Amino acid sequence: WGRRQAINSAATLEHCLQWMERLGWLENFDRVARGEAAPSRPGWQFSDSEVYKLLEAMAWDLARTPDAGLEATFDALVDRIGAAQDDDGYLNTAFGHPGRPPRWSDLAMGHELYNAGHLIQAGVARFRTGHDDRLVEIARRAADQICEEFGEGGLDAVCGHPEIEVALVESGRALGERRYLEQARLFIDRRGRGTLPVRPLLSAEYFQDDVPVREAAVLRGHAVRALYLTAGALDVAVETDDDELFDAVTRQWEHTVARRTYLTGGMGSRHQDEGFGDDWELPADRAYCETCAGVGSIMLAWRLYLATGEVRYADLIERTLFNVVATSPSADGTTFFYANPLQQREPGAPAGDGVNRRAEGGIRAPWFDVSCCPTNVARTLASLGSYVASVDTEGLALLQYAAGEVRAGGFVLRIDTAYPAEGIVRVHVVEAPDGVRRLRLRIPSWAPDASLRVGDGDPMPVEPGWADVTRRFAAGDRVVLELPTSPRFTWPDPRIDGVRDTVAVERGPLVLCLESTDLPDGISLDDVRAVTSSAPVAHGDGARLTATVDARETVDGAFPYGSRRPSATRTAPLDLALVPYHRWAERGPATMRVFLPVGE
Amino acid sequence: WGRRQAINSAATLEHCLQWMERLGWLENFDRVARGEAAPSRPGWQFSDSEVYKLLEAMAWDLARTPDAGLEATFDALVDRIGAAQDDDGYLNTAFGHPGRPPRWSDLAMGHELYNAGHLIQAGVARFRTGHDDRLVEIARRAADQICEEFGEGGLDAVCGHPEIEVALVESGRALGERRYLEQARLFIDRRGRGTLPVRPLLSAEYFQDDVPVREAAVLRGHAVRALYLTAGALDVAVETDDDELFDAVTRQWEHTVARRTYLTGGMGSRHQDEGFGDDWELPADRAYCETCAGVGSIMLAWRLYLATGEVRYADLIERTLFNVVATSPSADGTTFFYANPLQQREPGAPAGDGVNRRAEGGIRAPWFDVSCCPTNVARTLASLGSYVASVDTEGLALLQYAAGEVRAGGFVLRIDTAYPAEGIVRVHVVEAPDGVRRLRLRIPSWAPDASLRVGDGDPMPVEPGWADVTRRFAAGDRVVLELPTSPRFTWPDPRIDGVRDTVAVERGPLVLCLESTDLPDGISLDDVRAVTSSAPVAHGDGARLTATVDARETVDGAFPYGSRRPSATRTAPLDLALVPYHRWAERGPATMRVFLPVGE
Repeated sequence: WGRRQAINSAATLEHCLQWMERLGWLENFDRVARGEAAPSRPGWQFSDSEVYKLLEAMAWDLARTPDAGLEATFDALVDRIGAAQDDDGYLNTAFGHPGRPPRWSDLAMGHELYNAGHLIQAGVARFRTGHDDRLVEIARRAADQICEEFGEGGLDAVCGHPEIEVALVESGRALGERRYLEQARLFIDRRGRGTLPVRPLLSAEYFQDDVPVREAAVLRGHAVRALYLTAGALDVAVETDDDELFDAVTRQWEHTVARRTYLTGGMGSRHQDEGFGDDWELPADRAYCETCAGVGSIMLAWRLYLATGEVRYADLIERTLFNVVATSPSADGTTFFYANPLQQREPGAPAGDGVNRRAEGGIRAPWFDVSCCPTNVARTLASLGSYVASVDTEGLALLQYAAGEVRAGGFVLRIDTAYPAEGIVRVHVVEAPDGVRRLRLRIPSWAPDASLRVGDGDPMPVEPGWADVTRRFAAGDRVVLELPTSPRFTWPDPRIDGVRDTVAVERGPLVLCLESTDLPDGISLDDVRAVTSSAPVAHGDGARLTATVDARETVDGAFPYGSRRPSATRTAPLDLALVPYHRWAERGPATMRVFLPVGE
Repeated sequence: WGRRQAINSAATLEHCLQWMERLGWLENFDRVARGEAAPSRPGWQFSDSEVYKLLEAMAWDLARTPDAGLEATFDALVDRIGAAQDDDGYLNTAFGHPGRPPRWSDLAMGHELYNAGHLIQAGVARFRTGHDDRLVEIARRAADQICEEFGEGGLDAVCGHPEIEVALVESGRALGERRYLEQARLFIDRRGRGTLPVRPLLSAEYFQDDVPVREAAVLRGHAVRALYLTAGALDVAVETDDDELFDAVTRQWEHTVARRTYLTGGMGSRHQDEGFGDDWELPADRAYCETCAGVGSIMLAWRLYLATGEVRYADLIERTLFNVVATSPSADGTTFFYANPLQQREPGAPAGDGVNRRAEGGIRAPWFDVSCCPTNVARTLASLGSYVASVDTEGLALLQYAAGEVRAGGFVLRIDTAYPAEGIVRVHVVEAPDGVRRLRLRIPSWAPDASLRVGDGDPMPVEPGWADVTRRFAAGDRVVLELPTSPRFTWPDPRIDGVRDTVAVERGPLVLCLESTDLPDGISLDDVRAVTSSAPVAHGDGARLTATVDARETVDGAFPYGSRRPSATRTAPLDLALVPYHRWAERGPATMRVFLPVGE
């Protein structure tokens, strides 16, 4: 993760900035500042939010590794944005200015509150990293204006794309503004009453305006919207001690994870509305699994973890970080996946330097028409440090494993690990707080044979869940966790039609996949069958698997349904290499499968 | 089919007319006739085409069963439409008039030529049923104007939605206008050169503007567009003796039927763009299988049959008629399916009397926002008689079996059958032409044990393909075909991931399905497993099947992927009733499956 953060810092931030300049998304702010009419403004109505997400990423990154050049870039960007803010705090380049539609004239699809939410989040990031400067002030004024406009007695409305809710609670917490929280509560309570006009071919489910949050049973509709909204609802529930709302969110998360989530942690199986499908509707090939939905799922699981301390939420965060968030950017941090399917049937065509539609074709692209994912990855990677550990009154919990230093709750810990390539995590206590403290380590649910060694003691078996070490800690103490990372078979529930009678291979927190790149010549990925009588074995950071290949009776039939049960002659076993899914498509166009049909 | 035609005539035509009046689609014509500005014209840009498709249906229906009331309704409708035609022949209510965008200003999405195509087809239907009256004249003027505008040296462009191509060839044939054919050829040749501007999130494939028709390997993009275009291309190939184009169409059809077609004959597996998916991308649950794509597939297969006389095309027409076209309308002909999935996971909610978005939810709806399907079903049912038989120099071929009279090629045949409920088809010769003639009967590919009895002779086994009787026929001759209609198992190609290790049951030309309505209480359709060691048996017009039910170890897991291979305890065998797929959802909201997972 450290390497990814460095690439994010060195390449991705600048990459995003250049694209936004090139496409005129920054110039939009200048034009508003100059008071010029902009009837043909470039960018979607939510392009402002990309700029704010980039600012948020920069703010986190500056706290991670201060850099004078980035600081100057950041300040200049804040100035350009600030110059476009109206006197009353309203800030948006697509509405409310000459040549543009009036403010709040298209709440369903206009994304005005969504944009403001990301501006406010950027302000929170700046504030939380120790600054109370111009960006914070801009965000505060924007939030104030929204409270004026949409508060009790004001506009009784919600935004088609949730985001303002989490932003208001977070800024309310950070800045100590209770009325921001109150405004978020209003937005949550107003939702689900069918007030948003529905576009042709969409439905109220699309924006979660079909059922009030506290009555809903499961996440549905547009996945990113559903996840952002539910994260905001949990924030409100926690801050207002609203048990009913809290239980509603927990119930929805449980149902969604049990029946509407991919092995990768990806969410959303429909392209049509970028939405959740029905229960068990989880096709591998048309998995949408938008990168931003992965980010949204982490936002929700993180809030649920903080509210409950339950390990299952941190488990899902790990799964999603390694297999969705890490899958989107290329190794060099300048091309991205928007959708993250678990099967690629046709090798993609290189995306080139242009604006890609959505990078659905198995090739990462430098930028998208709707380009929400690159900046969402950037802000997540830049703030990854926050997800590593948590503290409570008892002590410190280590949630995610990566080499580096953890400073929290009076502890300074040095973590030494090659995780996930290896399963050994060495925790060195550099500084310890006074008194008896609990140091707890997360044992992932995939690791039933883990062991923990405290100091020079013997390794003791630990079960998935928490491994606690409660004692008076001192500098020089050492705890070593060993997680087994042999590749393993993982079987889907038979109710998931799209992957019936298939098996996947995982290794530690990584989902693996088979790419056509690793097949012998002349063999189609369609015909490969996994042999499950022998376990897969470790190979590099992936695995090797025994497989056979169906030899077909005829080259092809005229119609793919017949009166005879298909039976194929199979080749002698082959040994095939699987690679981590997050690295797929790095070696050129390929077909790919996470789930392999079982051959015996 | 006769009953369906009667319902179509008695209920569907009037139903469509009333909806069009109610929604203002007819008033659009009156407004243009009056010269009134219509800045907020109701209906999509293609609503005119619905009116024309209804006219076409009425024209065919009037020829089938003359009716003075319908004739008067038809004439009045033609008058309203004619009044909106411009002096130069241009006729469109969405473009080219006060308050509307100019003519041909949005060829990609404006559907102007598409609308004109359906107008011309309605004119052809009227002409072919023995009238050369006002509608024919209106259509002729519209076609002339298009030739003026888009001919050699004119606008070098194509329409985003094909349809004008088939319409021009058909009217060129009917009216003897060679230049209509020439214009169609120009449209076919111009396509596939990327001239249509691509909307966000779509691609040139969507309108088959990615590759010239003669170079394409398979049907792709929006299924209805692809099928209409290819039908037009075949027409052009036949009329101009263009073997290259002919071979290209045959190749695309073969590839599409072998790898991109559902068991029902349905085409199009993607909701996002109403399009074809990749090879083998045929999920049962998200099958789009638009009703109109079924109509388009019949149009294409019919043209291929007429050009080649090959039985395989007539086979696909039968499959598609019984399992797509017949599935869309309800028994009473006033509600319709737009999409025809092969699996319904959640029972739908009743659609009510409103405009449904797309009836994807397992309930037929009276009308849709984009309401192309009801009128397409209506014109197909009204003209069904044309698909029953064909003649050539050798004699007559019977292609589809239904009770009724066939008059063609000098023959008058009375067909006596309860097909498909029963497999016996009795052909009585009422009149016969002079000389030796060939009477051929299609033996469907699903009927390997068919037999044919000529006169008082013994039944002789006949193979799938053609069964020919060549002789001097005389009134009173009799031929009896017996097709076995025991229910049978049908197995999908293992490369279709969405239905791996499942089986379907067919009976004669009918695909059957299992509805939750026919399950014992407390059993979920998700858990039913087909037992294939004993064959299904006939039951009503469906079948009875032996099945077991998975009993789960736990009510539900937290995450639907685990380290143990799923194995379920199964119940004792149950006997379940399957019904014809085309009748599903007639008994209230239900879940449904065509393909059942195999239990042993």
